[in-house]
Amino acid sequence: MPDHRNLLDWRDLPVDAWHALVDRARHHERAREWTHSARGQSIGLLFFNPSLRTRTSMELAAAQLGAASSTIVPGSGTWGFAWAPDGVMDGDEAEHIEEAIGVLSRYYSAIGVRLFASMTDLDADRAEVRLRQIQAASEVPVLNLESAFWHPCQELADAATIHQRFDGAPSGRKFVLTWAYHPRALPMAVPNSALMAAARSGMEVVVARPDGYELDDSVLESARSAAAASDGSVREVADQAEAAEGADIVYAKAWAGRQVYTDAEAERQQRSAFRNWRVTSQLMDATDKGAFMHCLPVRRNVVVDTDVLKSKSAIHLKQAEYRLHAQKAILEYLWELL
Amino acid sequence: MPDHRNLLDWRDLPVDAWHALVDRARHHERAREWTHSARGQSIGLLFFNPSLRTRTSMELAAAQLGAASSTIVPGSGTWGFAWAPDGVMDGDEAEHIEEAIGVLSRYYSAIGVRLFASMTDLDADRAEVRLRQIQAASEVPVLNLESAFWHPCQELADAATIHQRFDGAPSGRKFVLTWAYHPRALPMAVPNSALMAAARSGMEVVVARPDGYELDDSVLESARSAAAASDGSVREVADQAEAAEGADIVYAKAWAGRQVYTDAEAERQQRSAFRNWRVTSQLMDATDKGAFMHCLPVRRNVVVDTDVLKSKSAIHLKQAEYRLHAQKAILEYLWELL
Amino acid sequence: MPDHRNLLDWRDLPVDAWHALVDRARHHERAREWTHSARGQSIGLLFFNPSLRTRTSMELAAAQLGAASSTIVPGSGTWGFAWAPDGVMDGDEAEHIEEAIGVLSRYYSAIGVRLFASMTDLDADRAEVRLRQIQAASEVPVLNLESAFWHPCQELADAATIHQRFDGAPSGRKFVLTWAYHPRALPMAVPNSALMAAARSGMEVVVARPDGYELDDSVLESARSAAAASDGSVREVADQAEAAEGADIVYAKAWAGRQVYTDAEAERQQRSAFRNWRVTSQLMDATDKGAFMHCLPVRRNVVVDTDVLKSKSAIHLKQAEYRLHAQKAILEYLWELL
Repeated sequence: MPDHRNLLDWRDLPVDAWHALVDRARHHERAREWTHSARGQSIGLLFFNPSLRTRTSMELAAAQLGAASSTIVPGSGTWGFAWAPDGVMDGDEAEHIEEAIGVLSRYYSAIGVRLFASMTDLDADRAEVRLRQIQAASEVPVLNLESAFWHPCQELADAATIHQRFDGAPSGRKFVLTWAYHPRALPMAVPNSALMAAARSGMEVVVARPDGYELDDSVLESARSAAAASDGSVREVADQAEAAEGADIVYAKAWAGRQVYTDAEAERQQRSAFRNWRVTSQLMDATDKGAFMHCLPVRRNVVVDTDVLKSKSAIHLKQAEYRLHAQKAILEYLWELL
Repeated sequence: MPDHRNLLDWRDLPVDAWHALVDRARHHERAREWTHSARGQSIGLLFFNPSLRTRTSMELAAAQLGAASSTIVPGSGTWGFAWAPDGVMDGDEAEHIEEAIGVLSRYYSAIGVRLFASMTDLDADRAEVRLRQIQAASEVPVLNLESAFWHPCQELADAATIHQRFDGAPSGRKFVLTWAYHPRALPMAVPNSALMAAARSGMEVVVARPDGYELDDSVLESARSAAAASDGSVREVADQAEAAEGADIVYAKAWAGRQVYTDAEAERQQRSAFRNWRVTSQLMDATDKGAFMHCLPVRRNVVVDTDVLKSKSAIHLKQAEYRLHAQKAILEYLWELL
Repeated sequence: MPDHRNLLDWRDLPVDAWHALVDRARHHERAREWTHSARGQSIGLLFFNPSLRTRTSMELAAAQLGAASSTIVPGSGTWGFAWAPDGVMDGDEAEHIEEAIGVLSRYYSAIGVRLFASMTDLDADRAEVRLRQIQAASEVPVLNLESAFWHPCQELADAATIHQRFDGAPSGRKFVLTWAYHPRALPMAVPNSALMAAARSGMEVVVARPDGYELDDSVLESARSAAAASDGSVREVADQAEAAEGADIVYAKAWAGRQVYTDAEAERQQRSAFRNWRVTSQLMDATDKGAFMHCLPVRRNVVVDTDVLKSKSAIHLKQAEYRLHAQKAILEYLWELL
């Protein structure tokens, strides 16, 4: 058990503490202040996968708190890493991830890691095997910048966006998380996290997805527990139009069907039948002046129509902006500055 | 009309304001001070093309003013961008440039963009279609770090270098912008900008280039207007040696002939006839103790001979140094700190 | 002769001054303070080769002293460089290294350069031809971040680690630098530097390597001189087990045999006979409770067994941590802040 905080996902955090962080993110949205509160702190940002928002907003979050940061892209200007705990390293990888993390955790006072799902081993992805290996090797807090199953920075940003939208009272509002078609099989970290954000906020949560695109049972169970504790609810439907009716939020996201873990080609074929799962103006008209959300990047006219993105109902840019504010709160939390 | 300043090129700026910025750049050259004047400001630096000077001097300019910066290389650790305003994004690009800019402009208080000429569509390049698309999507000032037709950071640095060379009185001095051979077809942003810097400074400007390498009519017209307002002049000649005679400045730069926009192969063949357009010691001897300038990077013994670069007449390193000083002035201008 | 300090290697530095820097590194290890002492200073970090530790610890060293830094990876987002002093640059390289360094040295108050051995020209590598070319082109101190023959940042970090291990009194302790098998032919900068660190510290230095893996004569000579001046000694043996007996430190490192410079294939074949040169628990058991050191990255179960790395005798992470502390001392030295 490490004697420092990690952030893999929010499930272990008491709901009061989580709400305090939502409030802190909203404080940063209003205050937009640059402080010296984290002077002497530093974070190494490790990106095993591409990033635009996460990298830039983390660099800026650190700078705005007075902390230093470095961005590291393994394999690009650095050595590639080996992961097998006790393998014979006679291949291409010159460094073991555990040495790399051991070293970085002696330089930085936190490490951020982006490490997407393998998409080949569902059990390993659910268990966050690689991120946990990194946490175990680290002497400082490890912050999840999107892992196989969770994206806690996005989750806190989403929650704060929703709380702002409803003046701090999202409870009872209808939140629709709708699956969307996408040309590629994508991981589930964002839908899992968005689901949890809405469930914790006491919303009426509806997950709209075609059959074959159910979220992971363990995640749905966590969401139902969270909803029950917050006077909310979680249900699944297979009809996007039905779900949208009277919605206060339509949150679109593509994710891969369960088959991808065993059969990517079958998943691709199954997916191709659902190209019409796209957020259109017509769909938004059925909502109760609902807001459109998406974590970005988003494919225009595939996941959502351009006119929806350009309409007043779209709050995806405010949502993205909240990444900065939320991550300032998260850094304060990890460094115990609150 | 945005309610913030952009900087695509300097043509819209009143000449007095432009001279005030030249003076400010020279102030920074002398003072070399690090301030906190831009604390709370930040700039996202987007490089669609390679850079050595621009990136490093922008990062340092921001740091020396107390501002934060991040450098972003699209496609390298980030998603590639789609540009068609309302296309169906089912290809390789995962993110639309307008979402990307919309987000970045909520993180940073300015965005810098390097985006070279397409070299395939002259009208689109002249109209700066892509940079204007970025400006339209941004909520904060967009700074041109070299676009299809303009390089305003280079222009201000060049002007300040020239003003320092002539103790603040470049008016009437002979400025020769000479075309040079180069193995590749290059854009015209730098020659266009250097031409404007000299014209605005009231110099006797001579553009020496082979037939077929005329600068764009619209640019020549802008330069002639600027020269007329500053008691200067602009003329074109097709003889490098004639141009150099009595010159106070020889500014070398390669650029592509007009045919490249319709026929790259014809341009290449045409260009191959002009390998002797190279700045030599002999050419410099014909000047009036003239100074050699180049924006860099420069190809030794192709554009200019090594001995010219190593001679006392070469001021290309001071010119490059002025990028830093000029960009500090530009950031102050964009952030309205002056 | 430049009027500023460079750091290619430590051989020219008086031993007292070197020990003062070792002490300064140890001071930083204890104090872990962030200061403003280098405010107004900046360093451009040029990496011609991959890096994890060096880049991140340099960025952080600069930040902790209040200085700015930029990291530059030639060929990745920048132009490639030409090196021939007076060649005709009509190939792929758009910029000459001397212009690049000339410019950077007008932006930054120091330049750090990582530039590994060519492995094709031993004389040029020993003479550090390329790093010296960079130093000659620079107007500010040039710091070696690992060159063909030397790694002075590693050397100071190693020395400070060793001094900490023996409470400031490493003199007379047995230091074994052992060659290790590795799938690739590696340069000698680290073994050369580690050897010098131990010799300067007055240790009983034993270099264990198979025949054919002798270190360079010039380096051994330097080490013997340094040892003689510090009451230490340097000898070579061809038996790893014999060397380890009673050792206080086992420092493992792979390097290429001398043949690589003339015949890489012969070197590879020769090397393949020595796969058993690997640090095992059994080997460590023969030491006098000796510590295991390695500069990292290290290949598990090729250079050293995983259980050695996980044992209490392993101090490679402290050694890597000392890079940060040592480099703060080095920056203070280069900028004359001590």
